[in-house]
Amino acid sequence: MTNLGLPVPPGFTITTEACKVFLETGSEPSSLHEEISGHLVALEKQMGKKLGQADNPLLVSVRSGAKFSMPGMMDTVLNIGLSDASVTGLAAQSGNERFAWDSYRRLVQMFGKTVLGVDGELFEDALDEAKHAKGTTNDLDLTAEDLKALVDTFKAIVRRETGREFPQEPREQLDLAIYAVFHSWNGDRARLYRRQERIPNDLGTAVNVCTMVFGNLGEDSGTGVAFTRDPSTGTQGVYGDYLQNAQGEDVVAGIRNTLPLADLEQLDKKSYDQLMSIMNTLETHYRDLCDIEFTIERGKLWMLQTRVGKRTAAAAFRIAVQLVDQGLIDLDEALHRVTGGQLAQLMFPRFAPTSETKPVAYGIAASPGAAVGKVVFDSYTAVKWSRSGEQVILVRRETNPDDLEGMIAAEGILTSRGGKTSHAAVVARGMGKTCVCGAEELEVDTKNRKFTTADGQVVHEGDVVSIDGANGKVYLGEVPVLPSPVVEYFEGTLHAGADVQGGLVQAVHRLMAHADTRRRMVVRANADNAEDASRARRYGAQGIGLCRTEHMFLGEERRKEVEHLILADNDKDREQALSSLLPLQKGDFLELFQAMDGLPVTVRLLDPPLHEFLPDITELSVRVALAEARRDPNENDLRLLQAVHKLHEQNPMLGLRGVRLGLVIPGLFGMQVRAIAEAAAERKLAGGDPRPEVMIPLVGTVQELELVRDECERVLAEVCASTGVQLDIKLGTMIELPRAAVTAGQIAEAAEFFSFGTNDLTQTVWGFSRDDVEASFFTAYLEKGIFGVSPFETIDRDGVGALVKLAAEAGRATRPDLKLGVCGEHGGDPDSVHFFHEVGLDYVSCSPFRIPVARLEAGRAAIETAGSDSR
Amino acid sequence: MTNLGLPVPPGFTITTEACKVFLETGSEPSSLHEEISGHLVALEKQMGKKLGQADNPLLVSVRSGAKFSMPGMMDTVLNIGLSDASVTGLAAQSGNERFAWDSYRRLVQMFGKTVLGVDGELFEDALDEAKHAKGTTNDLDLTAEDLKALVDTFKAIVRRETGREFPQEPREQLDLAIYAVFHSWNGDRARLYRRQERIPNDLGTAVNVCTMVFGNLGEDSGTGVAFTRDPSTGTQGVYGDYLQNAQGEDVVAGIRNTLPLADLEQLDKKSYDQLMSIMNTLETHYRDLCDIEFTIERGKLWMLQTRVGKRTAAAAFRIAVQLVDQGLIDLDEALHRVTGGQLAQLMFPRFAPTSETKPVAYGIAASPGAAVGKVVFDSYTAVKWSRSGEQVILVRRETNPDDLEGMIAAEGILTSRGGKTSHAAVVARGMGKTCVCGAEELEVDTKNRKFTTADGQVVHEGDVVSIDGANGKVYLGEVPVLPSPVVEYFEGTLHAGADVQGGLVQAVHRLMAHADTRRRMVVRANADNAEDASRARRYGAQGIGLCRTEHMFLGEERRKEVEHLILADNDKDREQALSSLLPLQKGDFLELFQAMDGLPVTVRLLDPPLHEFLPDITELSVRVALAEARRDPNENDLRLLQAVHKLHEQNPMLGLRGVRLGLVIPGLFGMQVRAIAEAAAERKLAGGDPRPEVMIPLVGTVQELELVRDECERVLAEVCASTGVQLDIKLGTMIELPRAAVTAGQIAEAAEFFSFGTNDLTQTVWGFSRDDVEASFFTAYLEKGIFGVSPFETIDRDGVGALVKLAAEAGRATRPDLKLGVCGEHGGDPDSVHFFHEVGLDYVSCSPFRIPVARLEAGRAAIETAGSDSR
Repeated sequence: MTNLGLPVPPGFTITTEACKVFLETGSEPSSLHEEISGHLVALEKQMGKKLGQADNPLLVSVRSGAKFSMPGMMDTVLNIGLSDASVTGLAAQSGNERFAWDSYRRLVQMFGKTVLGVDGELFEDALDEAKHAKGTTNDLDLTAEDLKALVDTFKAIVRRETGREFPQEPREQLDLAIYAVFHSWNGDRARLYRRQERIPNDLGTAVNVCTMVFGNLGEDSGTGVAFTRDPSTGTQGVYGDYLQNAQGEDVVAGIRNTLPLADLEQLDKKSYDQLMSIMNTLETHYRDLCDIEFTIERGKLWMLQTRVGKRTAAAAFRIAVQLVDQGLIDLDEALHRVTGGQLAQLMFPRFAPTSETKPVAYGIAASPGAAVGKVVFDSYTAVKWSRSGEQVILVRRETNPDDLEGMIAAEGILTSRGGKTSHAAVVARGMGKTCVCGAEELEVDTKNRKFTTADGQVVHEGDVVSIDGANGKVYLGEVPVLPSPVVEYFEGTLHAGADVQGGLVQAVHRLMAHADTRRRMVVRANADNAEDASRARRYGAQGIGLCRTEHMFLGEERRKEVEHLILADNDKDREQALSSLLPLQKGDFLELFQAMDGLPVTVRLLDPPLHEFLPDITELSVRVALAEARRDPNENDLRLLQAVHKLHEQNPMLGLRGVRLGLVIPGLFGMQVRAIAEAAAERKLAGGDPRPEVMIPLVGTVQELELVRDECERVLAEVCASTGVQLDIKLGTMIELPRAAVTAGQIAEAAEFFSFGTNDLTQTVWGFSRDDVEASFFTAYLEKGIFGVSPFETIDRDGVGALVKLAAEAGRATRPDLKLGVCGEHGGDPDSVHFFHEVGLDYVSCSPFRIPVARLEAGRAAIETAGSDSR
Repeated sequence: MTNLGLPVPPGFTITTEACKVFLETGSEPSSLHEEISGHLVALEKQMGKKLGQADNPLLVSVRSGAKFSMPGMMDTVLNIGLSDASVTGLAAQSGNERFAWDSYRRLVQMFGKTVLGVDGELFEDALDEAKHAKGTTNDLDLTAEDLKALVDTFKAIVRRETGREFPQEPREQLDLAIYAVFHSWNGDRARLYRRQERIPNDLGTAVNVCTMVFGNLGEDSGTGVAFTRDPSTGTQGVYGDYLQNAQGEDVVAGIRNTLPLADLEQLDKKSYDQLMSIMNTLETHYRDLCDIEFTIERGKLWMLQTRVGKRTAAAAFRIAVQLVDQGLIDLDEALHRVTGGQLAQLMFPRFAPTSETKPVAYGIAASPGAAVGKVVFDSYTAVKWSRSGEQVILVRRETNPDDLEGMIAAEGILTSRGGKTSHAAVVARGMGKTCVCGAEELEVDTKNRKFTTADGQVVHEGDVVSIDGANGKVYLGEVPVLPSPVVEYFEGTLHAGADVQGGLVQAVHRLMAHADTRRRMVVRANADNAEDASRARRYGAQGIGLCRTEHMFLGEERRKEVEHLILADNDKDREQALSSLLPLQKGDFLELFQAMDGLPVTVRLLDPPLHEFLPDITELSVRVALAEARRDPNENDLRLLQAVHKLHEQNPMLGLRGVRLGLVIPGLFGMQVRAIAEAAAERKLAGGDPRPEVMIPLVGTVQELELVRDECERVLAEVCASTGVQLDIKLGTMIELPRAAVTAGQIAEAAEFFSFGTNDLTQTVWGFSRDDVEASFFTAYLEKGIFGVSPFETIDRDGVGALVKLAAEAGRATRPDLKLGVCGEHGGDPDSVHFFHEVGLDYVSCSPFRIPVARLEAGRAAIETAGSDSR
């Protein structure tokens, strides 16, 4: 640690190298014992006494040297060096027998629990019993004799539970405690935490060994924690807790009532003033909020530990801006201090923390937010009820494109099947709509319009439920909800200068503005209609990077024409269906181009397989079979079933979709391009500035793109000729198949832009069907550490990322001005945004709700690159 | 052409450059006219007369300069330069008016048909009418007057059909004919042919222009074709046809009866002797069978054209060996002259050509051969009937793993659905069993045990059909079949020296032996059981490169245990199911290792998704719904349906399978490895030399492999300890996911060998589900030229191949002694074998029946690389 001239007890550090050897070999490195000896000899020399020597014992603490606290990591062990022999020496030396036995019982308790793995409750129960016998609840009422007896009890517990004596050899205590810290790095909870927080497993931890100072030496001693500013709001002031005549863990264990830190001023003015001064020194040094552990030993203040403190998302923003205003950091550094993850947290409404309702089910937190509404079981009811002013939660086993209107109408979506990238999850995130999916305890019975919880409660259509998309909890009844002021700010309903939540909105505003000036990458939105487009603009989108056109083939009015299109067995019927769809889709584009006037709109031609527009094969087969059994066959169902059979695919994701459809169904892509071109021409004639771009999905080889390009150019020329309007519409392709990435150099010959479809690319590169694999084995894979985070959440740099990089380079080699972007969900993921910046993409496109996150992270990425360049 | 001192009429050649400009721009290159002029001026100077000049016309022929004949390419146009003016000049000059008008009517006819695109039948009908009017069928009976009238008729036809006059300007005739050759390169039929024959589209053709010599100048003139040896058998001798007083196309058009070439000796001994001498010169020059076109003009022999001649597969082998024996070529060159495709043709039985039965349906030629048998509609009947000595053809809409035993029992498989890579096709090819699939005209009704042909004929179970897997034809009734002597040779039932089919077997034997001495790559077999393994050994396999273990989970006895395994919800049930399977699977391996004693056997652990071992979801849902409607629910079906629902996947190919199963189902892979190890130990104790290798499927990241490796090593250690046998079993992985290829450098750290699974790799690299895409859009893709050949048939070098190359290099960089092989179907495809040789693989593995092809092509590839090295 940098020497800041603080009163720190002497000690030494065992470096992380030893930990790494532990990780690799699973056992103590042979050199470790020697390393400890070397440090210990020096320390004993400095202190003029030996570890645990009987007459005048040197005592030490052992704690993890990790830069962050981590669940499952070994707690600190204090008073190492005490034994049956040295406890009397400590009593004599301190002139305080009670203190000596209090310290010894603490050692046996802490060592027993954290190093030897004895259940901590056994010690606590024995302590309670001792207090109970004295008729008190305050441990200070226990005398030296009581504590001596307690030590015996504790040692008996150790003996019984571990089959060995509590080690009396001081050096053995030290070594075991140090080994235990290293071992705890690899415990299940620590591994899980690191995986969740994306901390590398091989980072390792150091171990700090520190001479003891004692807060349990009497009324003039004590221990406390302090924060340089309020970690939940960022407000500067005196925050913390103090406890007299106590050792470290007593403060947080809550065995006695702590005092507010401010009260220390009256108890020990000198130490208080010194602490205030030290807090100021630390904050100036770290230029950030610090948390501090300290001990006062007989009126002398000692610093035990300090770290940059954890804080809430809101505090992170506020503190960063406060530090700028105090001149401690600049805006670049402030931007570096906040994350997209924190911003995302601030953007969702939350259930009011006063609620005491218990969840009835835990699903997957698929799309954050807090949604309350009446349960409905189908899209039709969702739309009907929401039109009459009801808030509804759409509950399904799983969703499919048929449910789209219902999902739009609902406040939230709850499914009993599917993972974080199921249809429900993906679409909900795209709409910024709360979603809990895969709540497998719920038995959803859509036919009878009810679901049943694990404990047998039955919820009927119209009952109210509340779902929390941030943690996957499902509640019965209404839980009160608080809106997000940050969203109100982005939506424009709250002014940037509004003074709410201690300046939160102002802080967000300043850091977003700075991110926008720093970032190189443009941020666009994935938006399919005018409403999403308008919202995206409010959130700062600089265009649309992905307008899916699937929805233009759905809806009551269009469904019939789409069925005609699919069932057509001759050109005439097909053309008729297409020309019925043309004016409707042109209308969609008119609205969209108006909403995004002056900004690029990348339209992806039809992508999904056709059977998605027809009924499910199993449901339909059952219906037909039952009708036949009743001798009441339905002609239309039979005809449909035939078509469904014909279009049925074993693996539809790898079947007839995307550009393949465009090449196999004559006129389909032509109709879409015509609708785009006619809408653009009409907008131009009306004085607008439409900027459509046409994007071809699922291209695997340049020949496909060339054939589609020919048709597009023909249609564009016709529309230009018939309207007299000059249209310059770029044509590009998705890069979402490994083959497209591998042959990107060839494909760039026919494409004016690439948009990486990293969702599909992840699916094909890994051989993962996202609808299937998350539910079936991703949990196991995360638990086994096969990956630290789902590759659908954060881009897999080694695999998918390597192909993105390869394709970007090959594409630019063929066509230096090739525009490169990404429109998979990764476009709004913080880590992935950094990757896309690094490989030189021009833009990321993400769902409207994630745009602020992408803007922030694109700014942070630019700063980090600049920083690493100048290093 | 090399000057061999042959009597060749003077002329010139327009190079392929002009053709390439045609291909790129779609129109005549501006420089072409000048290029023609330059050549023409020189030719006219040499001949001392001008093209089509009225008094003494120079006449020329125009023909394609392509090195091979190609359907749809423009036929030769003779007599260019004749017009209303020059025809009289020709008459005067030759003193033969009939000849002049005969030549002119031929010009108008040929030019009209091939250059102007008039339907040729119109001319032929008019010619027939003229002959009919004269009461003859011999065109020689037409007088000059008749022919003059016919020219008028022909010119009227041209005028009527094209709206233009027959061009009288000689130079215009020449230019149009040249352009027409170039245009015909891009005609539909030519493109299709090139695609089938894998001739590059941009190769282009030259055009040869040649001064005319006339075979129609009287009895002392004529035209003929000759072969230096018999193209259907390879026998040396005088083969060909001659026709007096005729022009080129008359010989093949068959308008008059031709004479055997030998008869020319009596008609014109001088020309005959000269021709024999020239044929000898040509064969010595080309060191191969040549075909020759010649004309005799008033007793003088002229050579018009010669090419290396086409031949049958059998002749190719025989001729190659004959030429070696004659000292014209060496064995390397002989091996280069035959192909794996020809060898494959020789290995299938064929329907006797005398058969006049008409096919009732055309399916896809999925696996060659000629099979005859009684129709059965399910696996059970197939097995039962075949056990009682019947030959059966298994007829299904499509097949699945349930049908395996039936497929093994059947002579051939006929399906109405699925493409060349459907389950039926893949498995049938693997078994070397005849298969016609996707015969969509057939309506298969398995429930009522019948199928119906397009014309309404109903075929019931037990009726006999014959299917031709070489061309996809389906016949009713029995068509006689001839066995292949080449297969009898490989099977060992025919001696290598057996003198059948003119030395065919001897020729095959000599060339196979030479290929074996030349090839660097080892050839292994894909074989799952002892029977296949033994056959593979007879065919020359040097081990097994892929033993699939799926079948070890099928069959009456095992099915129940596998169901228990899948439905188990606790460790005990699962372990019980696994230990019931262990001895059965150990037995399978014992047989296999015995059959492949001393050679490596690569066993792939379980790969397919679990639901493949359960009933189909739609069929089961219908059954359950119907039972419910009858109020007669089946408990077991209900329980199964629940499991099937749970395991149901949207895209099973990208779901829970391969290594994922091994990691998610505790003990599964361990049981398989134990069965392998125990079998190997038992074989060793019995004095055998088992050499198993364990292969993990569907690995995407090295962590998966490491986890499986840990388990395998644990099991191996246990088996070694309990049996006391030392086992050295290599562990490797399939590279069949793009991510595995991209991160091969990492994966090689945990793998001792890579086997490229190019089937699955093709699926994921292209995003193709082979079960779906071939049927739905491959036809369209082939027609549009998006690819020339299915990437499932021949490896896609630019995409899939690039990843194979990348992975091979990265793997070897990590582990220089990494063994590399391929076990996808491409391992037996000639072109792909060459690719695998080029990228340095150590072995290819293919189905037993394809092993000779792979051996031959691996030898050819080695020779070609050596050849190109020494160039």
